[in-house]
Amino acid sequence: MELIKKSVTGMKDILPEEMELRDHVVRLVKEVYTSFGFQSIQTPCVEHIENLCSNQGGENEKLIFRIMKRGEKLDISGAQNENDLCDSGLRYDLTLPLSRYYASNNSKLIMPFKALQMGNVFRADRPQKGRFREFMQCDIDILGEPGILAEIELINATTTLLGKLGLKDFKVRINDRRMLKEMASSCGFEEESQQEVFIILDKMDKIGIGGVREELINSGFDRDSTDEYISLFENAGNDPQKVAELTGSENTAQISQSIRSIMDAVNAVRNSDFSVEFDPTLVRGMSYYTGTIFEIEMKEFGSSVAGGGRYDAMIGNFTGNPVPACGFSIGFERIITILAEKGYRPSDESSKMAFLVEKGADAEKLGNIMKEADLLRKEGKTVRIDTMAKNRKFQKESLAAQGYTEFRDFFNK
Amino acid sequence: MELIKKSVTGMKDILPEEMELRDHVVRLVKEVYTSFGFQSIQTPCVEHIENLCSNQGGENEKLIFRIMKRGEKLDISGAQNENDLCDSGLRYDLTLPLSRYYASNNSKLIMPFKALQMGNVFRADRPQKGRFREFMQCDIDILGEPGILAEIELINATTTLLGKLGLKDFKVRINDRRMLKEMASSCGFEEESQQEVFIILDKMDKIGIGGVREELINSGFDRDSTDEYISLFENAGNDPQKVAELTGSENTAQISQSIRSIMDAVNAVRNSDFSVEFDPTLVRGMSYYTGTIFEIEMKEFGSSVAGGGRYDAMIGNFTGNPVPACGFSIGFERIITILAEKGYRPSDESSKMAFLVEKGADAEKLGNIMKEADLLRKEGKTVRIDTMAKNRKFQKESLAAQGYTEFRDFFNK
Repeated sequence: MELIKKSVTGMKDILPEEMELRDHVVRLVKEVYTSFGFQSIQTPCVEHIENLCSNQGGENEKLIFRIMKRGEKLDISGAQNENDLCDSGLRYDLTLPLSRYYASNNSKLIMPFKALQMGNVFRADRPQKGRFREFMQCDIDILGEPGILAEIELINATTTLLGKLGLKDFKVRINDRRMLKEMASSCGFEEESQQEVFIILDKMDKIGIGGVREELINSGFDRDSTDEYISLFENAGNDPQKVAELTGSENTAQISQSIRSIMDAVNAVRNSDFSVEFDPTLVRGMSYYTGTIFEIEMKEFGSSVAGGGRYDAMIGNFTGNPVPACGFSIGFERIITILAEKGYRPSDESSKMAFLVEKGADAEKLGNIMKEADLLRKEGKTVRIDTMAKNRKFQKESLAAQGYTEFRDFFNK
Repeated sequence: MELIKKSVTGMKDILPEEMELRDHVVRLVKEVYTSFGFQSIQTPCVEHIENLCSNQGGENEKLIFRIMKRGEKLDISGAQNENDLCDSGLRYDLTLPLSRYYASNNSKLIMPFKALQMGNVFRADRPQKGRFREFMQCDIDILGEPGILAEIELINATTTLLGKLGLKDFKVRINDRRMLKEMASSCGFEEESQQEVFIILDKMDKIGIGGVREELINSGFDRDSTDEYISLFENAGNDPQKVAELTGSENTAQISQSIRSIMDAVNAVRNSDFSVEFDPTLVRGMSYYTGTIFEIEMKEFGSSVAGGGRYDAMIGNFTGNPVPACGFSIGFERIITILAEKGYRPSDESSKMAFLVEKGADAEKLGNIMKEADLLRKEGKTVRIDTMAKNRKFQKESLAAQGYTEFRDFFNK
């Protein structure tokens, strides 16, 4: 077989320059989140195929990389379908593995459990610009806290981090899955059809409120219900209280109060440049959310940079007992792209020196040169030792392009 | 399908305490190696199956986790063997992917290219204590430097790192694949049978020199050759010069000089507590080595903690032109186990405080509490905010066990 130079489709080799930025951001993420008491954990990249295909991953379940059984367990001639041939797969997110992790290890964890996960996930998506089949996710989750303290802490930690990365002028949009349902019910949409309603509502950003109305009617929904629904959004604007008044239900009053409290507390502690807004049209794709949902939007870059919400039911699928859970995930790859576009450079902590050593130096000479380099490294400098190239000028120029500012030449005589 | 709580066989969930140690070691590794001018890079966890099965991975090729083809490309009924069903697999080491990476990206890299890789690799090994199917590898490699500067730098960087981790009294064993061959040839072992000779020689640690002699003879090797071979080891001891004298060949004189120079330079710059020794019985398993090979041994823990060597031919398999290459890999998992056994604790940079907030605090109160926490975090403290538990005493004890030393209670009245 011939060797293949390019990386596999949709997964990328990361060059030193991008890697320097990534390493810097990883360090900062760990530093900020651990200062909030989050604890790093790690789960395997490989998960049981039964867990991955348990209808908790929505569309992502169609994108699983399946791992083949091995040895005697692999029965090719007797296999009917792909699941007969595989016993595991690559994880497509960090939330499902976290739920399994919690179910398996909770006796060894402090409660509530505040988890920080940074790890690669895999999706056999159609390759396209800026979208990869292996990418890093970075999640914080609070398990075991039923109150809004969880939501507030997650938003506070995430906005603190984005602020430290120099990101400004972003908007935290908040909604609640229960509010979405109450609003739809109050206009007469049946529970069973609400998922379809929300999928259409989710297109608001792209097709506008008129477009949503049209699509609802074209999809066969009742015209009166649709009109009432649309006017609810028009009249409520971004005020959760208004939704409560307009629907007049006890439930919406309570949910509205919860959203208000989260927003007030986040506003009070806000330590970077952003705004918080109730957005009754925010849906968020994953079906596992059960309460508050939130997203951070950066208009300048035309996309969300973080998203999350409360999912009080998922862990119960593993343990039998529901455990309140709420998480917030930053779009690590998106943020790296934004920082690179903005020309963000990790502050150079150390100055960089290169020692160029003429070919043929003996052991004694090499030892002395290295001792010198060692002393400089102890002072915090980066020192690279290279054999002197024939074209020394070009060699120094290449190194200078990589941030090397000081050079020393060592000749044999 | 039922959900499975335990992680997949042989791959482990990492608990917060171990993760804190791992994060600390990762930070230190990156800090030390980048101070030598190594640059972080990353390749995908998934590699082309053609590359993984190209006879460069030795025994590891039997341990590949294969990833199934997807969609139309998956033809179950027409498949004859497992390779018909898969198009890729999980990488079993970082050396093969590095060679592919270099072949694909070398025009964008500074020469010689000094790469640092930290990443997980996967081997479908028989699960056993302390051996995992997913584990981290940590490699440094210098590509494009034909001289011993590469060997010296790699050993110097690795021993500096181990010293910073508080590891002492370790031994760097050095040999050269060419020396191994010269020694075998000089005693009359044919080139074709030398691999088998080395596999037996590699058992020296376990069966002693008498055992090696016996096994060589039992395997049908010539008795005179075997006796000559054995006496060569007995007479040369740990002196490369002696090997040169005893074999009397020009080649061994040169190789011996190269080994001597590496050892002298490493000794001269040595900045932690270790010794360097020529060991003519060192074999190292991988067949891709072409020159110097080395290993770091910690007697106390009965195993090697790092290993590497020169592999000047592998990159040429991708590019068509040979590129000199030399690498050194620390046994990351082994080192984590050793540090944990030694009770090594990352120096606690920040003191840890917990705020306990009585249930039902309003948004204003929560905002104020969080502002206070925020100020303390800016001073470098870790501050965790939890809802006050019914059993506050137990709650504080649990947190104290995790290193929380200061507590503040916030009541509603």
